[in-house]
Parts: sequence; structure tokens; C-alpha cells
Amino acid sequence: MKTLIKSGRVVTAVDDYVADVLIEDGVVSVIGRTLDIEADRIIDAAGKLVIPGGIDPHTHMEMPFGGTQSADDFFTGTRAAAFGGTTTIIDFAIQGKGETLTQGVDNWHAKADGKTCIDYGFHLITTKFEDGDDAEMYRLMGAGVTSFKLFMAYPGVFLADDATIFRAMSAAGQRGGLVCMHAENGIVIDEIIKRFLKDGRTAPKYHALSRPTIAEAEGVHRAIAIAEMAESPVYIVHLSSADALNKVREARDRGIAAFAETCPQYLFHSIEDHGDDWEGAKYVFTPPLREKHNCGELWKGLKMDDLQVISTDHCPFCMKEQKELGRGDFSKIPNGAPGVENRMALIYNGGVVENRISLNRFVELTSTAAAKMFGMFPKKGTIAVGSDADIVIFDPDGETRFGVEHEHMNVDYSSYEGWTVKGKVETVLSRGRVIIENGEHTGKQGDGQFLKRGECGKI
Amino acid sequence: MKTLIKSGRVVTAVDDYVADVLIEDGVVSVIGRTLDIEADRIIDAAGKLVIPGGIDPHTHMEMPFGGTQSADDFFTGTRAAAFGGTTTIIDFAIQGKGETLTQGVDNWHAKADGKTCIDYGFHLITTKFEDGDDAEMYRLMGAGVTSFKLFMAYPGVFLADDATIFRAMSAAGQRGGLVCMHAENGIVIDEIIKRFLKDGRTAPKYHALSRPTIAEAEGVHRAIAIAEMAESPVYIVHLSSADALNKVREARDRGIAAFAETCPQYLFHSIEDHGDDWEGAKYVFTPPLREKHNCGELWKGLKMDDLQVISTDHCPFCMKEQKELGRGDFSKIPNGAPGVENRMALIYNGGVVENRISLNRFVELTSTAAAKMFGMFPKKGTIAVGSDADIVIFDPDGETRFGVEHEHMNVDYSSYEGWTVKGKVETVLSRGRVIIENGEHTGKQGDGQFLKRGECGKI
Amino acid sequence: MKTLIKSGRVVTAVDDYVADVLIEDGVVSVIGRTLDIEADRIIDAAGKLVIPGGIDPHTHMEMPFGGTQSADDFFTGTRAAAFGGTTTIIDFAIQGKGETLTQGVDNWHAKADGKTCIDYGFHLITTKFEDGDDAEMYRLMGAGVTSFKLFMAYPGVFLADDATIFRAMSAAGQRGGLVCMHAENGIVIDEIIKRFLKDGRTAPKYHALSRPTIAEAEGVHRAIAIAEMAESPVYIVHLSSADALNKVREARDRGIAAFAETCPQYLFHSIEDHGDDWEGAKYVFTPPLREKHNCGELWKGLKMDDLQVISTDHCPFCMKEQKELGRGDFSKIPNGAPGVENRMALIYNGGVVENRISLNRFVELTSTAAAKMFGMFPKKGTIAVGSDADIVIFDPDGETRFGVEHEHMNVDYSSYEGWTVKGKVETVLSRGRVIIENGEHTGKQGDGQFLKRGECGKI
Amino acid sequence: MKTLIKSGRVVTAVDDYVADVLIEDGVVSVIGRTLDIEADRIIDAAGKLVIPGGIDPHTHMEMPFGGTQSADDFFTGTRAAAFGGTTTIIDFAIQGKGETLTQGVDNWHAKADGKTCIDYGFHLITTKFEDGDDAEMYRLMGAGVTSFKLFMAYPGVFLADDATIFRAMSAAGQRGGLVCMHAENGIVIDEIIKRFLKDGRTAPKYHALSRPTIAEAEGVHRAIAIAEMAESPVYIVHLSSADALNKVREARDRGIAAFAETCPQYLFHSIEDHGDDWEGAKYVFTPPLREKHNCGELWKGLKMDDLQVISTDHCPFCMKEQKELGRGDFSKIPNGAPGVENRMALIYNGGVVENRISLNRFVELTSTAAAKMFGMFPKKGTIAVGSDADIVIFDPDGETRFGVEHEHMNVDYSSYEGWTVKGKVETVLSRGRVIIENGEHTGKQGDGQFLKRGECGKI
Repeated sequence: MKTLIKSGRVVTAVDDYVADVLIEDGVVSVIGRTLDIEADRIIDAAGKLVIPGGIDPHTHMEMPFGGTQSADDFFTGTRAAAFGGTTTIIDFAIQGKGETLTQGVDNWHAKADGKTCIDYGFHLITTKFEDGDDAEMYRLMGAGVTSFKLFMAYPGVFLADDATIFRAMSAAGQRGGLVCMHAENGIVIDEIIKRFLKDGRTAPKYHALSRPTIAEAEGVHRAIAIAEMAESPVYIVHLSSADALNKVREARDRGIAAFAETCPQYLFHSIEDHGDDWEGAKYVFTPPLREKHNCGELWKGLKMDDLQVISTDHCPFCMKEQKELGRGDFSKIPNGAPGVENRMALIYNGGVVENRISLNRFVELTSTAAAKMFGMFPKKGTIAVGSDADIVIFDPDGETRFGVEHEHMNVDYSSYEGWTVKGKVETVLSRGRVIIENGEHTGKQGDGQFLKRGECGKI
Repeated sequence: MKTLIKSGRVVTAVDDYVADVLIEDGVVSVIGRTLDIEADRIIDAAGKLVIPGGIDPHTHMEMPFGGTQSADDFFTGTRAAAFGGTTTIIDFAIQGKGETLTQGVDNWHAKADGKTCIDYGFHLITTKFEDGDDAEMYRLMGAGVTSFKLFMAYPGVFLADDATIFRAMSAAGQRGGLVCMHAENGIVIDEIIKRFLKDGRTAPKYHALSRPTIAEAEGVHRAIAIAEMAESPVYIVHLSSADALNKVREARDRGIAAFAETCPQYLFHSIEDHGDDWEGAKYVFTPPLREKHNCGELWKGLKMDDLQVISTDHCPFCMKEQKELGRGDFSKIPNGAPGVENRMALIYNGGVVENRISLNRFVELTSTAAAKMFGMFPKKGTIAVGSDADIVIFDPDGETRFGVEHEHMNVDYSSYEGWTVKGKVETVLSRGRVIIENGEHTGKQGDGQFLKRGECGKI
Repeated sequence: MKTLIKSGRVVTAVDDYVADVLIEDGVVSVIGRTLDIEADRIIDAAGKLVIPGGIDPHTHMEMPFGGTQSADDFFTGTRAAAFGGTTTIIDFAIQGKGETLTQGVDNWHAKADGKTCIDYGFHLITTKFEDGDDAEMYRLMGAGVTSFKLFMAYPGVFLADDATIFRAMSAAGQRGGLVCMHAENGIVIDEIIKRFLKDGRTAPKYHALSRPTIAEAEGVHRAIAIAEMAESPVYIVHLSSADALNKVREARDRGIAAFAETCPQYLFHSIEDHGDDWEGAKYVFTPPLREKHNCGELWKGLKMDDLQVISTDHCPFCMKEQKELGRGDFSKIPNGAPGVENRMALIYNGGVVENRISLNRFVELTSTAAAKMFGMFPKKGTIAVGSDADIVIFDPDGETRFGVEHEHMNVDYSSYEGWTVKGKVETVLSRGRVIIENGEHTGKQGDGQFLKRGECGKI
Repeated sequence: MKTLIKSGRVVTAVDDYVADVLIEDGVVSVIGRTLDIEADRIIDAAGKLVIPGGIDPHTHMEMPFGGTQSADDFFTGTRAAAFGGTTTIIDFAIQGKGETLTQGVDNWHAKADGKTCIDYGFHLITTKFEDGDDAEMYRLMGAGVTSFKLFMAYPGVFLADDATIFRAMSAAGQRGGLVCMHAENGIVIDEIIKRFLKDGRTAPKYHALSRPTIAEAEGVHRAIAIAEMAESPVYIVHLSSADALNKVREARDRGIAAFAETCPQYLFHSIEDHGDDWEGAKYVFTPPLREKHNCGELWKGLKMDDLQVISTDHCPFCMKEQKELGRGDFSKIPNGAPGVENRMALIYNGGVVENRISLNRFVELTSTAAAKMFGMFPKKGTIAVGSDADIVIFDPDGETRFGVEHEHMNVDYSSYEGWTVKGKVETVLSRGRVIIENGEHTGKQGDGQFLKRGECGKI
């Protein structure tokens, strides 16, 4: 099977040129100025961008949370991702209470097997890690799960104490594993929440007010300090505030291997979006929305490489029946929002069109950096000879409309309802197969493969 | 009873002039260029410095630790303090396991009543603090215990989790109380200790190596972050390293009410003093000795007011029978060293004579700042009309010899054995009574009074 | 001549107590709880603050500027100072074009001799300093002029190039002299001014807009860098912005002897006060008014001792005939504003009453620190035995009304017209003589003496 | 003419894959896994790296300096560059005293025309820039000279005052031009030099001691401040010290478009290399050698992208007859050292082999970043379809020996005499023509073309 993409503007994290791209057996085989080669399928990409498929290293499909579970399963979620131009996700498997690390991964394999529309990997949310657990960690790494997420928040649920974090980092760091950190001082936050509820401050916006940026900055600083002592790298997930970013900057200025991602919600929304009423529940996720000035600082961090990756933290809950669990008590609102489908167009518009980042940097932030960070490069994350043909043909002059009626995520609201942005995902190829075309999903459930990832942090 | 100190050079934290000082009823009543007044006792101070008696806000008399207790009781310890020119200590009462805050204070009153040679106060080491405990805290504050020490180190013994710290700070901060923090990430440190012991690294120097400066800096940063969220001031005890100091600097640059003390051991000793053998046990205290360059940074911090106080953390254990408990396992060596008697002359010499700080700053660091910080000013900490006549007549041309045979602490070694420094505590008055003169203790056990302290942090 | 101040609350930079103060021969001779001593004059100060007279180390009396001269001479200016509770000024003598250093000082002696109502000293504005000029500098220092001001602004008028600055700092620093720096990149600013005028932006507010905070921060950073290379301290005058303050903070964090003053206009006014019309000319001074957020940062700097002194930069020009010189061209508006009379009450109210600084710090910032910084301590700057009886009896419950009709400066507007603040200068003594009482000047022209100052920077 | 490079490991700033590369008409036309295409020339690159030819944006060929001129002309210098794997240089044309900008460029065209072996561009050293000079600057930019170097050092020779810098930056910044800055406070340095010479400190090492890192840091800070006010980017040349790097870091943390290069001499040498005697003259260049710890900080800056480019500042003077001009007076030693030939292998070994930077980053630092920074991308700086076939075939297992007998620069010493490093430039192609092969220069004088560069700073 040969596919030839003709005359597109190929953009990678560093290059930018017009060429023809030949795909054979799912892999890019030849790139040339003009390829006069017969192919099974020829796609005319003249005037279009030909970019690496998006990689979203932070999704939560079918994730149990507070008695319900996130509304997208691995089929609907990955199909929505594909619609949005994302061809790889890394989802978070969870080591449940009393479970081994391996059981956590096995459970997620069971959920995803045969259901995904795009390739996928797993991080493992690690809730318990004792000294003897190194061997099991290394077995999982051998099986392609090379990154582990620990929480400094959610005491009693996910929170790992500093000893656990230190042990996990020490073990992971020795073999090219990477600890991803939810960095917020959840212990203090829980105290603040108790006070708020006691004082009758129960509306959704109090979710945001109960989680000050200082708590996030403290977590980031501590995570990096522990990583230094453990002689390991660390990757901060969903960084949301200037205060937290400053801790990453300070460490990177000292040459420390501290990395961080942010998400579109922190770039485009701010605490004002909560309003005072129940509708604000749409924006209840963690870390929460921040004061407006943080958005600009995060863009600055993305530009200057103090933030390396843009993920989504996609974790949708419907307003109806799900978010409603927290009416009258913000702390019971399921934390999370949809986003896996919106990312590429949002960032293209807000970043490239609005002149905050270059086109190369757009590719790096949405694809290449994640591939390198999480051990998938050069299979994923670039358009180069030998790489998987995970390719998005993107129309820079097209338009994308957001809103429930235009989106494919399994949720009853959109975070960007009514927004129209410049740029449009036109055609999506996953390992050479066209899976999105003319606004239709042309692939099928089960197309996606599990990705055995290698060493992390090679960025 | 009238005492007249004639012709001395009176030095306070700001002033410096020659005058006669009249003391009546234990209090300074008149200061004049030449006072022709009859007095019961006239002391000629010509050519001498007349300075406020030293205040040491960090001592541990009769403190239980690892199956033994610190070697000085309230008599020997305060007598040694007086010999060294210190006329006030604040010792640390401890809330034992299962005890209320009040019981902790009561137990320490029982130890000190009728035994001290100088005035004294108590901080309370708080190991448990729940939401309902505010009222009891405020009762203790009314009874003069207005500062509370919490530990981020020693899990299972003293460690208070971040929630406890937040609650205690919130409560204290609302009423002028002050939380003193032992700021080291003891949870990670305990992991490192376990590894060291497992690897057979058991000599005293591994005590120092198991407690990296990053762990201290992390603790300081977190303590300040929690204090910011609790809207309270915070006072870092025994700060030992440049890394930790930088966290205080950064907070103070932002205008945060973060304060810190250091101790002579961190100014004059460094990790080389451990050597490789057992003798290094003398220097096993916490935080531990650091690389040499830290000393200079701490002096800089003292000069620029990023460090406000010099205390001793006096907590002596004899090499014989006590330190010996940790032969073959550094983690069992009782933590602490003598020092209450050495401070004034050490700092005068190392600071003023060696031109690192001014004479006024010497007074401020060893007396005035502690009086203001801990709610004893202007009763203590200055020479001014109406203040307690806690006065040291200090001979700037004299010499002080350190070493077991010259010192009065109840311990079988000196941290400064064989050192001779410039400057000598000649005569010491406590509330107007001469208690040290001609190298003799002329006061008696029980002279000292408990100090009911007021609001803290008024510096 | 004996004067006895009874029952006042004596406040110094460190102390705070109620006492009687006896003054003999212009000097404080005895301080006591109750002094039953006969005196020529007894002043009842019960309920009042008894504080050191204010020291304003930055005034410009009779200063030539752009074809006119500042509106206060040494009589009207120092009388106004006395009304406001200031008992010492340091004015800026100027080394004119082609003049020697000595001529500059002599010219100012000629202006001030026999005219001042309070004691005074001179800094010397140094416009030329060659290698051979050290000897002359040291002669002037021997004659009591121990501080030298250099300008990084006003090319062609006052600007000293970096070589001159380096030479002057090197010379001064070796003998306890101090270079005061007007730190703004005037060369770049002049380029911006040219553009503004070319573009027709001529209203007073463009004065402020033509002098960005970056230009000030750059000057401060460069001044400190040159001082480091010259191994000398440096004192930044009239620091006005957070950007500039951050450069001082950064240097002080490193232990560098960098000092700075700010002025009330930067604490209470902001760029909005300019408005768009001509009235804004009242606020044309240099550095200019800044965005509002800077005020809070400067207060923070004052509290945390990154700023050590509050001066006024008093340099009044009448709106009529003087400021008018710049109608239609902001660059021709004489730079300066009145203020010597307003400082003490303004800072008491804005600082102490509004809880930004303590009462002790108020005394330190308005008097003690300047005395130490500029070699006048302990003669000036404190209330202590042996010090000059420059004393203000200040009514903390009184009120001060600002405005032309209430003030005594020789200028036709007030920067604080219509303001009423808490606190009132009631009685002012200069070397023991009452010079202000019941709202009247009871002293006379020529009361003031020239102050031969000693080594600087002893703070 | 077709050339096919077979089976090499193609490495760009982001990619890394094995492929065949076809070159037609000097340009890369096809890249494929296996290309069965006939070609005029087939090069077997199995086991070799195929990387973009090096770009050295900082050379001085035939540069007049202190009565002599740099020893390489455009032929010998560019041939040596080619031997070392560099296929593009940007040399510094100079606007001489009294000359227009255009004359400066014309003079350099005259030197280079028909002489170079590789492609080349010019920056213009701008010594005079008045308001009216914008038009001429833009004409030069239209002719491909889009970057301008200004000096803060060398008063009386090259030094541009801050007004000139501001005007040039303002003009350049509006149209995509870039000001390159020699950032050292040369005015203060000249004062220090005068003192040294007066004191008889004349040996070569005093060159280094007379130029403290503070002087460099000050220059960098000021250059960035002026750039901010001029709303333009700025590029710091030959950054040499941690102090200076910290100023770049601080600006980049704030999102400012501040860029910087360093050079191998600052990464591999330190002030100890001067010794006390005349041989140290080999290392007299500016900025000078620094204390050893700076090297590590610079590597850290390269890794974390606070430094973007590695250039050489190639400016060779023979020890004999040239350096000798400064015997007895270090200030007369011609400033500069050879290096254009050493860069690629040195950085490969010190960076990649010694594990300080990745292979991709090596390519970025030595080629790609300079191409983007200086408006030559994607023509230069990458291996991609449509780009010039400036390609180095690099043997990672080979060895390069440094020393006069192995090098081709026209100078009588080597800065790396006797060093052997891992990695070897094997074959060099310039626009598809093999110009270095088997250790021989197979190209000829005049092969190189002048590069009309476009907008700068697109990185």
C-alpha cells in the first residue's frame, strides 16, 4: 500500500519546505521535491500544511472519579482525538488500592484493547512504591510503560508521600524512566476546602479559590527538590500558573532536568469564567483556573522552552448527572473537562496565528517534544524517512468551529462553545491509513496499537 | 538597691555613647553623661562596652532524646549561659505523645521552677494541632508562651504534617503568635539514612551527608509557602546553608514576613570537621555541618538582615555514654552540641573583630532582635530607661579561652576546644544583680524568673 | 541653658519608652524615668512622641536649572524644613563647568552662610573627576564634605561618563567617602525625548513617558556594577520604580554595599496624576512619576531595608514664570517639586498610621539611617546621651493640613494640596533651642551650622 | 550533476534516521530509505553521520587591528573552515572612521570576492549611526547584510555610545535586522588597564585580569535594556562568563528576545592557561579567559538554550611579529586567536562524546540556530528537501588531531596543540560539490558565493 501526499508544505519542529511525501507500509519512505511515483492513493496537499500528527500525553479515558467515570471511553475518546488531529495519546493507567503496579497496567490494557482508533501508550499512576518494587517497575518499563505519575494532591486517594516519591524517582531515574508529577500541596488545600465548606462557600468558583497558586508552586518546587536528591528528571503535568512556572524556570536556569507541560484551558480561560453560579462547574478541573495574567506568562514559558509540551488533561464529565454530583458542594464535582479534540486548532490559532509562537514551535509543542519526552521518537513526532506516517494535513486558511454540535467527544458541553478559530484539520493519517477525511471518521475501532515506549526525557 | 555603672561605652542595636547608667530595683532608671548619685554599688566600666545581656532563644535543657537527655539541666545550663554573657534563654517545652499543649508547658515549668540562674521563657514544641485546639493555644499565649515550634523532620517523633503546620500557623498568626520551624524534609532524609545504613556507611560524617542542603532548602521554601497561605509569619530555626538562606532571601525580597536564625556552629565549622572517624560525633547535630562556602554566605545573610538572630541550639550530650549510643550507627547518635556559653564572645570576635558586622549589629543579633521577635521588648534586649537591667560589661581588649577546662557547661567536650578569641564577658547583671564577676558565679540557683512573653514578630 | 522635656514617649530607631529628657548646652545630658531637676525651660510632652529631628539628605536650595533657580533659598527652605520637623538637611553643591571641586563647595558655602535656620551639610555634585583629583577630594572630605553626587543623566549638563564614575568611586571608596548616584540612562532618554518632541508629544505627561523604568533600572545596575569594580559602596538617590529596586535587591542579596533612598512623591503619587494638560507640570521631576503598582513595591522595599532612607529631593519651582518655561515643550519644564516641609507627617501617616512600617522604622528612615549613612551619627539621628538635641515633639493624635495656605515653602503650589493627614509636628528643637512652637518659627535666620561630616556608609 | 549519499545516519537539529540523500544541482532533492537512482557520484556513508555543514557566524578574516591584520585572508581562512567541517561563515565588515555604512560593506566585498572556498555573508561593524541613517541601513539589508555589530568596548576605536546603539537597534528592529553586541564596559576596562600599566603589570595574563566578568555582565545587561527600550531583539557575541550568562537568563525568563553565542575557547580554556609568562599571549583575545567554573556554566547554558549558537570569533595573529607587538604591554597584543577549523570536532567531542549535549543539539548549536538567527534558513542549516547540499560526512569513530602540523589556518600556533579528540570530518560538500575529501581540499578559491541574508532572529 502506497500513499503519496503531493505538494504540501512539510513542517517539522525544525524544517519547513514544500515536497512530496511517499508512504509505504505505514511509514514515510521517500520525501522529494517532485516524486513521480505511482501510488494507491494520492492526496493533493498544495497550499496545506503537512505536519506530524498530534501527540497528547495526558488523557483520562473511562477514568473512575468520585463514583462516576470520565465520559469518553477509549473508542469515543480516541476517535475525537483523531478528529482534532491527534494521532497518539498516552493515557493514565491507575494502580488501585491494594493493587500491584502490574495490575494497574493490566486493567488499562483491558479497557483499551481493541477499542482505540489511534495508537496509544500508558503512564502508570503509582500510588504505592516500596523499596522492593524496583524490579516490577523495570519489568513494566520493559513492556513499554516507562513513565509513572505520582500525586502530591488528593490525600487518601492518590497522594503519594515524599518518601514514596523519592523511591519511585530514584528507581525510575536509574533506567530512563520518568516520574510525572501532579504538583499541588493537596494536604493544605484540603484544609482550605474544609474551611470553605464550613463557611458555606460551596459554589463551583470556590474550587478555584481553594487551590491557591502558592500551593501549586510549592508542589512544583518540592517535586524538583526531591528529583534533585533522587538524581532523576521530573516532568510536571498540567502546570497552570506563573508562580509554578517560576519554580521550573529557576531550576532550568540551574541546569536541572525539570520539564513541564501546560494545557489549553490554562492558556485560554481564567478564573472569571467561573462566574458565581452553577454553570462554572464546567471549569472545575485541577489545577483550577487562574487569574488572567497567568495566561500570558504560560505563553511566554512555551515560547522560551520553560514549558516543553502542551497536553489536554482530557477528562470529560457531563454537566448532567456527573458534574451535578457536586451541586451544593464544589468538592464533590468530578474534576475534569473535555479537550482532546480541541487542542491542535486552538493552539494553531492562539499560538501561530496570534503570533505567540512559530509554526515549528507549534509542531514541537503539540507533537515532537512529547514523542522525545516519552520515548516514542522517531517513530512518532516527526515527518522523516522511517517514521510512522502519522500525519495531519492542515488547512491554514480553513476555520474550525467549536461547540457541542461540531465536536465528537462524549460529553454534553464544550469548553469553547461558539468559538471559531482559524486553521482546520483536514485529513488525518495514522500509520499511513486515512482515518479522518471530509469531516468523517474513515477508520474503525481497534485501529490503534499499543505503543511500547522506550527511555524518557531524551529532549 | 541602686547600682551605678560608670563611664562605660553603652552600645545598643542603634546607639553608641559613653555614659553612666543608674539601676534601681532591677531596672535602668537614669542614663546620663555624668551621674553624681550615691549608689549601693558602683561599677567602673571605663574602657568597657556596656551592652544588653545576651538572649538565646534556642536552648534544650534536660531534653529527652533517643533514650537519654541533654546533659545540662536548667541550673547548669543557665549558669553556663550567664558565664557566657547571656541573661535570657527561651527553652523548648515539648508536647509529648498523647499530651495536650498545656501539659507540655506544665512539664517544662516543673523542670525549670526554682532552678534557673537567669530569666527564661518557653516555646512549645507542638506535635499535634487540630482545628479545635485554637482556644488552648490562645490560653497558653495569655500565659506567656507565644511561640510554637513545629518539625518537618523526625517522622514518627516530632514531625508535623503540612495540615498540622497550616492549622497551627493559621491559629498563631491571628493573635500575634509565631511558629518556629525546623525546616528539613525529614521524610526524604530518612530514606537516605536507610540507604546509607544498608550500605554500611555508618560513621558520624554520614549524618551530615544524609541531610543534603536541598532537603533544608525544600523545607524552608515549604514552610514559607504554608505561612503565606495561612497568612502568618514564620521563623526558621537554625538555618545552616546558603541554599536554605536563598529561600528566605527570595521571600523577603517579596516582602513576606519570613524570619530566620542561624547558630555559631554553622558560622565557624564545616563538614571537614567531621573527619572520618568517631570523634566527628561531637559535631552530630541537625541540621548538620555544611561545605565551607556556606559560612561566608551566612555571615552575609546576617549582615544584610536576611538572617535576624543568632541562637545556639544548645543541646549538649557527652561523648561518653551519650554520643556513644550511636557508635556503629550514626542515626543513633544523640543530635546536639553545647554552645550556650560560647556564643557572645564567638560572635564578637568572628563578627566585630573580624569586621563582618558592626558593633550595633552584634548587639542586635545576639539580643535585641530576639527580644522583639519573641515579645520581650523593651523589657529585654536594650539598655534604655525602664528596661530590665540585664547588662553585660564586656572587655573588648580581653580574651576568652574556650575548652572544657574553661567552660561551665555539663559536658565532656567543647566544640571550640583550644580556641582563644578576642573580647571577654567581664561582669553580668541580671535585673540589676551582679551574677557573674571575676570569673565566678555570684548569683544562685532560682534567681531566674519565667518570662510571660507578648506578641511576636514585632521586628 | 537647661531644657527639660517631661514625660514624653521617646522613640528612636530601636527604643520606645517614656522618660524625661534633659538638655544642656544643646546636647542631651540625662534621660531618666523622672528627673527632678531645675531647668530654664520645661516642656510637657505627655502623650506625645519625642523623636529625633528629621534629616533630609537631598535638597536643592537656590539651585540654577534651565535659566532659573529653585524657588527656596537657604533661609526659606530651611525654615520650611523646620516647620515640617526636619532639623538637618544635606544640600547639593555643584561643581560648575570649568570649576574645581573646591570652587563648587565654596560657592555653596557662600549661598548658605548665615542664612539657614537648621544645621546643614553639603554633598558635592561632581561633573569632572580626573585621576589627579584624589587629593582635592580628600581635602574636601577633611573639610566635612564626604559624599559626592554623580549623574548618569543630563548629557551635556551633569552627566559623568563611566570612567569618571569609576575614578570618583575608587577614590571615595578608599577613604570612607560615598558616591551618590542619579541613576538613569540619560543618553537613551535624550533620544526618546527627541523623538517625542519631533512627534509633537509635548505635554507634561510626556516627561514621564520619555523616562521608562528600564532606563532607571539600567542605571542602577550599572552604578552598582561600577561600584563593585571600584570596590566602593554606592548610594542611589531618589529611586522611583520596582524595576530599579529589584536591581538593588539583587545586589544586596549578594552582600554588596548598595544603598538607596526614595522620596514621598514616589510613594504617594503615580503617573495618573499628570493628567493630559498643563497642570501636570507640577509633577515634572526626575525620575518621573510611575505606574501605581510601583508605590507598593517601594513601601515593601522600605520595610525590608532594601531602601534605607526617605529624602525629599526638594527642588521647588513656581508654576508661574518657572514651570511655564516649558509650556509647549516638556523638556524645558524645570525639573523639581517642593516637599521638604511635608515629609515627616506624610511618612508618619502613610507609613505608621497605615501600618506599613513600625514607629521605630519611621524614625530610622527619616533620620537615623541618613545620619549613619552620611557620617553624622551619633551627633545627629538619635536621642541619646551626648547627641545634639535635635528633637521633634510630635503629636500622634494631631492633624496636619497640606496646601499652599498652610505651608511655608516659597512656591505657588503644593504637591499635596488639600490633603489632611494624621500626626502633627508640634515643637521642634535644634541643638536644644526651640525653633518651632505653636505654629510659629521662633528661631532666626543663621541659627544653623555647617556640619563637618565624617565617614559615610556606616550603616 | 547528481550525487547520492548512501546509507548515512542523517542528523538534523531534530531528526535522526538512516537514509539515502540525493543531491541535484547543489540542492537536496530526494531523501529516501533506499534510493535506486543513478548518480554521477555515489558516496558511501554507512556508519557515518550526515549532518548540515557547520555555520560559523563570527569570523574576522584580514581584519586590521593595531597596525597589523588577522593572519587568515578569505582564501586561507575559508579553506581552513572547510577542512573543519564549516561550509558557511559570516565575517565582520567594518565601517571605518569617516566611512558610510555602504563603504564598509563594499570594502569587505572587495576583500572576499573570488577568494572564498565556501559561502559567506557579512555583518557590518557599525561605528556611527545617526537618525538619518535608517534608509542606508535598509538598503544594505535589501542587499543581504541584515545584521550589525556594535561595540561597548574599545573606546576611540569601535565603541558606540548608548545613543548610537539605541538608534541602530530601533532602526534594525523595525525591519527584521539584528544588532550583535560586543558587550563589555570598555570605558571602565580602559581605566583598569591604565592602572595596571602604571603599576607595571604588563604580562599577557593582565589582559584577562583587566577585564572582570562584572564588566561583561554589565555590558550584557545594558545591551538588553537598550534593546527592550528600542523594541528590538539583541544578540550577544562571544559570551564568556557565568555572570554575563545570568543576565541573558534573567531576560529570557521574562520572555525578552535576547540571544547569545559562546565560543570554544570559553568552553575549553580558563585563565590558568595564561600562566605568568609571554606564552600566554596566545590566549589574548576579548573577552578574555575566565575562572574554570565558568566553563561548566556555559555548557549548561548551551544545553538549556540560554545560549543558542557556538561561533569561533576566529581572528588569528601569529606569535611571531604579530602577538609580539605587545611584549612588555599586554594592551598592545593583537586580540584574537585561531579557531575556525577546530570548532566542529571540538564541540562534537566535548559536547556529544562527553555527554553534555545531544547529537541533535550539536547540529543546532553549530549550524541550524545560526542559519535561523541570521536569515539563511532553510537554504542553510539543515538537511531537507530543497536546502543547499552543504553537508558534512562525519565519522563518529574517527579521531581528529589538533596542532599546527595538522591544521590549515595561516598561523604559527594552535590553541589546542597536541589535543586529540574523538570524531572526524571526513567529507565536506558545499552546494553539492565535494570540497574536502581524504584530507585534501578538492575545491578551489572562489567556489564560495556571497549570501544575501533575510530577516534575522527567526529562532
